[in-house]
Amino acid sequence: MLRKPVIAIVGTGQDVEPAVSNARELGRLIAKQGWVLISGGRNAGVMRAANEGAKGSEQSLTIGISPDRETEVSPHVDVAIITDIGEARNNIIVLSADVVIACGVEEAGTSSEVALALKAKKPVILLGVTERAKAFFGEIGEHLIHIADTPVECINLAKNLSQISGY
Amino acid sequence: MLRKPVIAIVGTGQDVEPAVSNARELGRLIAKQGWVLISGGRNAGVMRAANEGAKGSEQSLTIGISPDRETEVSPHVDVAIITDIGEARNNIIVLSADVVIACGVEEAGTSSEVALALKAKKPVILLGVTERAKAFFGEIGEHLIHIADTPVECINLAKNLSQISGY
Amino acid sequence: MLRKPVIAIVGTGQDVEPAVSNARELGRLIAKQGWVLISGGRNAGVMRAANEGAKGSEQSLTIGISPDRETEVSPHVDVAIITDIGEARNNIIVLSADVVIACGVEEAGTSSEVALALKAKKPVILLGVTERAKAFFGEIGEHLIHIADTPVECINLAKNLSQISGY
Amino acid sequence: MLRKPVIAIVGTGQDVEPAVSNARELGRLIAKQGWVLISGGRNAGVMRAANEGAKGSEQSLTIGISPDRETEVSPHVDVAIITDIGEARNNIIVLSADVVIACGVEEAGTSSEVALALKAKKPVILLGVTERAKAFFGEIGEHLIHIADTPVECINLAKNLSQISGY
Repeated sequence: MLRKPVIAIVGTGQDVEPAVSNARELGRLIAKQGWVLISGGRNAGVMRAANEGAKGSEQSLTIGISPDRETEVSPHVDVAIITDIGEARNNIIVLSADVVIACGVEEAGTSSEVALALKAKKPVILLGVTERAKAFFGEIGEHLIHIADTPVECINLAKNLSQISGY
Repeated sequence: MLRKPVIAIVGTGQDVEPAVSNARELGRLIAKQGWVLISGGRNAGVMRAANEGAKGSEQSLTIGISPDRETEVSPHVDVAIITDIGEARNNIIVLSADVVIACGVEEAGTSSEVALALKAKKPVILLGVTERAKAFFGEIGEHLIHIADTPVECINLAKNLSQISGY
Repeated sequence: MLRKPVIAIVGTGQDVEPAVSNARELGRLIAKQGWVLISGGRNAGVMRAANEGAKGSEQSLTIGISPDRETEVSPHVDVAIITDIGEARNNIIVLSADVVIACGVEEAGTSSEVALALKAKKPVILLGVTERAKAFFGEIGEHLIHIADTPVECINLAKNLSQISGY
Repeated sequence: MLRKPVIAIVGTGQDVEPAVSNARELGRLIAKQGWVLISGGRNAGVMRAANEGAKGSEQSLTIGISPDRETEVSPHVDVAIITDIGEARNNIIVLSADVVIACGVEEAGTSSEVALALKAKKPVILLGVTERAKAFFGEIGEHLIHIADTPVECINLAKNLSQISGY
């Protein structure tokens, strides 16, 4: 049996645009592909929107990697993994994903997720980030860093990335 | 939306009986209930058997909490969560479960899972364990410890446990 | 340069006897040997007593492996390692120690520490535990489990354990 | 009793200049202040140099937060904390420090440490980093980010940071 591709969506817990709208649309498209969505699981910002977007589709599967027992998990998360390892759970999110998509990186937690993904040699797609962030992570991540302007572009990039091309 | 109950099966990575047969049957019954199976995810012993048992059913969902990037994950795990936190991942397995079922505890890793589950105030069902183990964990865990002789009994106990009675 | 032996004292966060008195005396003796004391770091029960005992000696060094940022660390801990990984930090305590001494195991957290130590193939000394606990862990841990009746006996056992015989 | 300030030095495991020379000098100065040095503990690059620098001083205390049981720890680490949580141990390094000093951030692991430190609201001093990195982290970290050109400047900054001003 072949496991379905797992795509991580990471981003701020704040309700800021266009991050939240991008995340919702990405969630929808990931579910449509039959891929599994993994996220930080919180009922806030990018995480909430991504899971909400995915659960519009019947065949969706959403996994939330929650930092601790107290955090409110999005009701659109199918399976909540309660880590109780705080921000260190960011490493689990990226290690469990075939591709990591960051909806903005202007927040410290998301930056740590991108950096940890690069450390783990995972491909990262940056969606809607500043030129500064593109330049910084582009230098550190080299060929692992991909830039997208729209959710559809993210999906097309993800399809072509070698890690999931076997599916 | 209500999340489906999540049941952890923990036990040895060795191919010993009756642990492995019990795990396979438990996996089958958990899937039949429409519950989610969570385990340590390895392609060995109790973990392999439990996931194999579950995947005989169409509606099954199996989550494997893997210790590191090198460990071979059971092909019957639908979603592999790669923690890279070694044995500390045992705490994530039990925190993410509504009920923990131990198929034998004669192994140090499984004992740590039972102890961590009790520390986290999770109900634990011991299946096929020695009188010594029943006495030891019964004293530490008090009302959280339940004893079963067969997989069917485990399922009936799990159904009645308050944590999942809302489902 | 050779690192000093590191001895873990694990036990309840409750103020129960003889666990607390044993821990205080063990802390004193460990410091006197010039060994490093490692513990769960909390300002409670066995952890507080062990660090207090050690800091009566000038040459002592006490390391506390704290579960999170909120927990009050014993003022007798020289260096507080803030893990924010909750009970999973138990694995770090035992992995960092040459020998683990348990002052009682009647508590779920301590039992997890003994089990994780055995999983990691670390020698464990049980001090003041019930016959039931001796029997249970003796079966699981085999040659890794040592039994002591007094703190002095623990120190003598620790001296002879091969892991630290090179010091 | 007041705990001594704990300063983290983070940086690449590669032997690149000026990062390694800066780390060695920083280690020396931290020890001279009577502060505790914490690092990733590896016997490589910035970590090796920092611990080596510190151990030239009698009163130094060096703590190494090692990723796993296999990694070679610097012989200049006094106490090795074996986490077995891989890169997630980066969060423990920064949580345990009063101030984090990064000797370069051109490496993904170090970037994750800076990001995790900012997430945890820890002050970070960047030493010898590119304009690009200053701009990127300056935007994310705001008042938590400090820039230094020399090791001496780092120490002066660290002295003035409120977190350790009580010492």
